[in-house]
Amino acid sequence: MKLQFSKRLDTFSSSAVREILKLTQKKSIISFAGGLPAEEHFPVAAIGEAFQRVLAAGNKALQYGLTEGYLPLRESICEWMGSKGVTVTPDDMLLTTGSQQAIDLLTRIYIDAGDVILVEKPTYLSALQVFRSYGAALVSVETDADGMDLADLAAKLKQHKPKMVYVIPTFSNPTGKAWSMERRLGVLKQCRESDTLILEDDPYGELKFGDASVKYPSLFSLDQHPTGSCVVYTSTFSKTVAPALRTGWVMADPEIIRHMARAKQAADLHSSSLDQQTLYQLMEHFDLDGHIEFVRKEYESRMRQMADLLQEQEWPGVTWIEPKGGMFFWLELPESVDTAELLKTAVDLGVAFVPGVSFFAENDAPKNTMRLNFTHNDFEGTINGMKRLNQAMESVLVK
Amino acid sequence: MKLQFSKRLDTFSSSAVREILKLTQKKSIISFAGGLPAEEHFPVAAIGEAFQRVLAAGNKALQYGLTEGYLPLRESICEWMGSKGVTVTPDDMLLTTGSQQAIDLLTRIYIDAGDVILVEKPTYLSALQVFRSYGAALVSVETDADGMDLADLAAKLKQHKPKMVYVIPTFSNPTGKAWSMERRLGVLKQCRESDTLILEDDPYGELKFGDASVKYPSLFSLDQHPTGSCVVYTSTFSKTVAPALRTGWVMADPEIIRHMARAKQAADLHSSSLDQQTLYQLMEHFDLDGHIEFVRKEYESRMRQMADLLQEQEWPGVTWIEPKGGMFFWLELPESVDTAELLKTAVDLGVAFVPGVSFFAENDAPKNTMRLNFTHNDFEGTINGMKRLNQAMESVLVK
Repeated sequence: MKLQFSKRLDTFSSSAVREILKLTQKKSIISFAGGLPAEEHFPVAAIGEAFQRVLAAGNKALQYGLTEGYLPLRESICEWMGSKGVTVTPDDMLLTTGSQQAIDLLTRIYIDAGDVILVEKPTYLSALQVFRSYGAALVSVETDADGMDLADLAAKLKQHKPKMVYVIPTFSNPTGKAWSMERRLGVLKQCRESDTLILEDDPYGELKFGDASVKYPSLFSLDQHPTGSCVVYTSTFSKTVAPALRTGWVMADPEIIRHMARAKQAADLHSSSLDQQTLYQLMEHFDLDGHIEFVRKEYESRMRQMADLLQEQEWPGVTWIEPKGGMFFWLELPESVDTAELLKTAVDLGVAFVPGVSFFAENDAPKNTMRLNFTHNDFEGTINGMKRLNQAMESVLVK
Repeated sequence: MKLQFSKRLDTFSSSAVREILKLTQKKSIISFAGGLPAEEHFPVAAIGEAFQRVLAAGNKALQYGLTEGYLPLRESICEWMGSKGVTVTPDDMLLTTGSQQAIDLLTRIYIDAGDVILVEKPTYLSALQVFRSYGAALVSVETDADGMDLADLAAKLKQHKPKMVYVIPTFSNPTGKAWSMERRLGVLKQCRESDTLILEDDPYGELKFGDASVKYPSLFSLDQHPTGSCVVYTSTFSKTVAPALRTGWVMADPEIIRHMARAKQAADLHSSSLDQQTLYQLMEHFDLDGHIEFVRKEYESRMRQMADLLQEQEWPGVTWIEPKGGMFFWLELPESVDTAELLKTAVDLGVAFVPGVSFFAENDAPKNTMRLNFTHNDFEGTINGMKRLNQAMESVLVK
């Protein structure tokens, strides 16, 4: 049998995340690679109780559900988002298999081959993979510690006439940065004036560190919404409850949601409604906000530990900025170091990270960056992992 | 905000299934429309126990999983399929969000815009929708009671040089037909000789009625497999266990599986691993084959009841063939009747069905067909639904 794959197949060749997930299954490796939450914090008992409540409600719980997702969960999420300044109704949203699917479905209905999408430099690698699979032309916008560079954005909006801008303004993957209010409002204004859709990816917004009085409102909440909004907002329960339930949501202008629902019908009819019903019961009978606050504090102390350990290493020519939230440190090494090569040494020594090159849209990306996750390992694991990483670093850094 | 949707958006305009699922939520309607299993047969207690076993195994059950799906469940499915003459390993398969996602992922990696896909006449409407969304050119092959017409297939393979043939050989949706062995072997031979991939959709294979000694081996089991097979096989737990867990699987040449896994990584990273783990525990601790035999018998008696009721109606010019398995009757009405119009009358009278026109690939499809589901309603519901349908029929049929 001679197989004749589609032309878009080449766009799926990068499989960094998948390989990372495979690495993390090996017990001998201490992994700073994947974006995994801490398992010991999962609310297992509460999820078990929620599930029993779902089944107790009767057999209909196991029947086919709506493509848009379980209505009571959509209502609960709307109410919960309302406490964060976002006013939406269940008609303005869709439940997805993680926010990854929201990125895929929006691209499917909005992007034709050759359309330009602007992205941050660097940005989430699996979003790049989705965009490429639909033949989008990707252009990076320069970023600094405060977010997207507004002058560069203006120039690139003018030059490329993109259809969409993809952003993670709050605790970026991979950099942990949070955009300033000026940048949030500036990007919104420019995109609105140029009729450019913004896809705001917000998986980490709840995981904020430092001064509690500092707020980072979502672009979606800052825009007139949802009808006529130029922002499509997606988030997930994967980082705040547990990833295995694979439940994300997307909120947008109802016309966009209606088309995404049709695309979802073709893609998989609907996501697991058992998981959606379980999450609804969890939101009804469990202190989700209290749980998120607990996780947030734990992650802040893990971030603090890794910051201190990085400080102690005194690696020459290695720089990083302390993340304002989220799950990751982003390190820049001396230009002479290729972190993809370094990863081989590191894995031999029993530690893993993600080479930064995959997080850039362009082919000429710098090779001297890496992403370190600080949420998955416990204190002892992080100490041992940093010892191993230090050994790997010593093989390439000149002290 | 001026929205600029992608060109492929138009291909998602048909939303028959979605509208059907909405109809079935109204309590006043007796629905013969959706392909819904009988809720009263769902193994709710066993699913509850299976879930508790998953959580008892520890917090890791709630972590991110592999894109390919939970390995122990893949192993269990391989073993179970082995008892049906299919020899595969977990590397030859992928777990999906229902078999609908398997159709989508295969199309994504195998079909470019303009490629021809041959389909049965009629065939599953949501598969047509997926194929159209990737810009495929769809061509119907004539079918009779024994399956695809081999002479017409030969002519169309020669004329159109299709990349793929999509078939439901065992208890077709929408017709309930089962292909003869001659047709199975004939289609396999022609596709193998012309390097045409076969997508075999088999959600209903377990639901066989009549003489137990009659077997309908899958095309996949009849082919040399899996390496080098020209058949991609997909099935699901939705009809045999419960749809809400949204777990299907696809088996094929490992090269195809590898590429589908990469496409799935971009599409949603992975399906609900909580559902997959629950199904694994269910297969380990529950008599799944015994349950399927119970459901099969129940559905056969429901089919029998609807066959008798249809016989009693004596609708002039209306014909059907008794289904050999699955979930559906397929009715042909006099050519003067447009069943899409008839549906409006029917819904006013409190009963729903699916007009057959959506199950045809071509635009000039006959308008005088309908699909009736016999698995979802209990005996009393079916009697009352048929009374209402008879009233609707009387409005268009001349006795």
